[in-house]
Amino acid sequence: MWGAVTRTYLDHAATSPLLPEVDAAMAPWRGRPGNPSSVHQEGRRAADALEAARADVARLLGRPDAGIVFCSGATEANHTAVRGLVAQGHQRIAAAGIEHPSVHEALRMAGAEVVALRVGADGVIRISEVGATALVCMAVNHETGVIQPVEQAFATGLPVHVDATAAAGRIPLALAEATSVALTAHKLGGPVGIGALSLRDGGAFPALVGGAQERGRRGGTTDVIGAIGFAAACALALRRVEELGAERARLDEHLRRGLRALGAEPVGAWERTAPGTTCATFPGLLGETVVQAMDLAGFAISSGAACASGSVGPSPVLAAMGHPEPRAGVRVSLGPSTTVGEVDAFLAALGAFLARARPDAYSS
Amino acid sequence: MWGAVTRTYLDHAATSPLLPEVDAAMAPWRGRPGNPSSVHQEGRRAADALEAARADVARLLGRPDAGIVFCSGATEANHTAVRGLVAQGHQRIAAAGIEHPSVHEALRMAGAEVVALRVGADGVIRISEVGATALVCMAVNHETGVIQPVEQAFATGLPVHVDATAAAGRIPLALAEATSVALTAHKLGGPVGIGALSLRDGGAFPALVGGAQERGRRGGTTDVIGAIGFAAACALALRRVEELGAERARLDEHLRRGLRALGAEPVGAWERTAPGTTCATFPGLLGETVVQAMDLAGFAISSGAACASGSVGPSPVLAAMGHPEPRAGVRVSLGPSTTVGEVDAFLAALGAFLARARPDAYSS
Repeated sequence: MWGAVTRTYLDHAATSPLLPEVDAAMAPWRGRPGNPSSVHQEGRRAADALEAARADVARLLGRPDAGIVFCSGATEANHTAVRGLVAQGHQRIAAAGIEHPSVHEALRMAGAEVVALRVGADGVIRISEVGATALVCMAVNHETGVIQPVEQAFATGLPVHVDATAAAGRIPLALAEATSVALTAHKLGGPVGIGALSLRDGGAFPALVGGAQERGRRGGTTDVIGAIGFAAACALALRRVEELGAERARLDEHLRRGLRALGAEPVGAWERTAPGTTCATFPGLLGETVVQAMDLAGFAISSGAACASGSVGPSPVLAAMGHPEPRAGVRVSLGPSTTVGEVDAFLAALGAFLARARPDAYSS
Repeated sequence: MWGAVTRTYLDHAATSPLLPEVDAAMAPWRGRPGNPSSVHQEGRRAADALEAARADVARLLGRPDAGIVFCSGATEANHTAVRGLVAQGHQRIAAAGIEHPSVHEALRMAGAEVVALRVGADGVIRISEVGATALVCMAVNHETGVIQPVEQAFATGLPVHVDATAAAGRIPLALAEATSVALTAHKLGGPVGIGALSLRDGGAFPALVGGAQERGRRGGTTDVIGAIGFAAACALALRRVEELGAERARLDEHLRRGLRALGAEPVGAWERTAPGTTCATFPGLLGETVVQAMDLAGFAISSGAACASGSVGPSPVLAAMGHPEPRAGVRVSLGPSTTVGEVDAFLAALGAFLARARPDAYSS
């Protein structure tokens, strides 16, 4: 059934498997009782572990003094942050079309008026104030991997929400000036189902899910074991971000040389990406065609974000970049376990496919 | 530090430790990649597992044909359900004061007008339509364990949201007539951080966290491994609910004989509880006093729900029941691993404490 062919997973930007070190950090807590809201020893022990976990997450963001509210993931964190900005009176919010769909959905649901920021063909947001009173700026784009100018966003002096989901664990972060930061554990080798919203101060960020937990900012029993895994992934990422980044950047270079030799064209400025993510097009081919062919050959890659890739629509990221064919993007994203042998095998399989591929019947 | 004294956990109603069988069901998925929204094999395998998990959860509720939307827990599920009722035009919603705080917070946040249902000293909700167009009715109360008359709620013919959190896995459920049902995994030996909202039909239940996942009903990457654990806990509970219930009912009986001998007074009708939960008062003593003394003696119990027990306030459940001292409740909740020896040891320690306890300085 599954797994008859050797599989190579090159879709770490969609979700990256739980790291063995993170699994080991969580293991002693599995089967141990403890609701952090309980007053007994089991509860207090869980509450202590939760506070320690907050510190590890805040450090990875370069915000050691900022509060951390645990929630179910970056989508919920983005929703809470955007609603918070609107609740604070920021009705006109600047955001680029390349922000994650959860940010755009949150802006829509919160009734915000979006001031669209321009994006270059390089995939970089052009920061501008243009009449908005607050900004959203992602740290790294989820489809292209291109690093975004959050420093310029901070320089405007306006409140800035940063979606650090695709950046955390991939590049060093110094986000002390952000009003709020969203991230999730499973993109950096932590467990799925836990994320965080980091808040700089006690500003009016109303809860999306109400309740007494997380100091009134997020109701529901906090997932302590998830938070412990998340924190372990953050601590590990902080320790290894430079070393792993350099290693992955070398693999990226190797991959990209191979892709160029096969006729691929870069999407976004490859020299400005966070290590591990490469987005490209293959002239005349839809992204889905390449993804499906590679899947059959045993390689998991994607066309656009996983949240969108169930349907074969155009990528809103490529569209916002003014790309002539937003359905042509192919994303290859490497993880900490990816080897040069896997990249070589992928390039060989891709070359074999491209040699026999017929152009898709689409016009740009 | 922790664990120098042997600990006995009798607070399974707050959170019940992960069952070994559930851990075993999740183990093969740990470290395996797969975002269920991805189109490649890893993604499709995750999506298949997710669909199978939905069926197991629906079966436990006695709603094999109802849809299941996975979310972070019962608090989020209650919020989504209540907002859904209000979005469908149900502005006046009947609910008793003994409903979980997350239901009351959801009613408040959704701007609903609450029609308060009466509750007897037996802890049972008196169902009545009294001008409301929809009802909320929990299946089992979280503090007293008293089983509630959901059948009577269904008989009104009005839309009914059932909070099955304290009931799932403890009593057989037949909730096919409910409009929506909320539950969470960690109360029945599943993982923390995953719960579900079961919806009978495709009615207008707007998402709380927007996004394409869960067919547009709940945004964010779905926690597949959590759902697999949740489903395993549900399947196990369905298989063992009668047997475990009978076993726990015998232990309850044993515990209660001992408690009565020590002068305890029942809170709610003990003959109407779901197996495993016993709520009592000790004349002249605050619940917190008993909980803290027992904690020092090595036993984890609670006064009221964990979500509220961080503060020593009166229990809204006991208050709604018209109890003369809403700060006096003590909850002892047994789990599948609880032994008669543990109950005997608890009763002995409680007896020793009560023999030396001075009445708290409070007036009822």
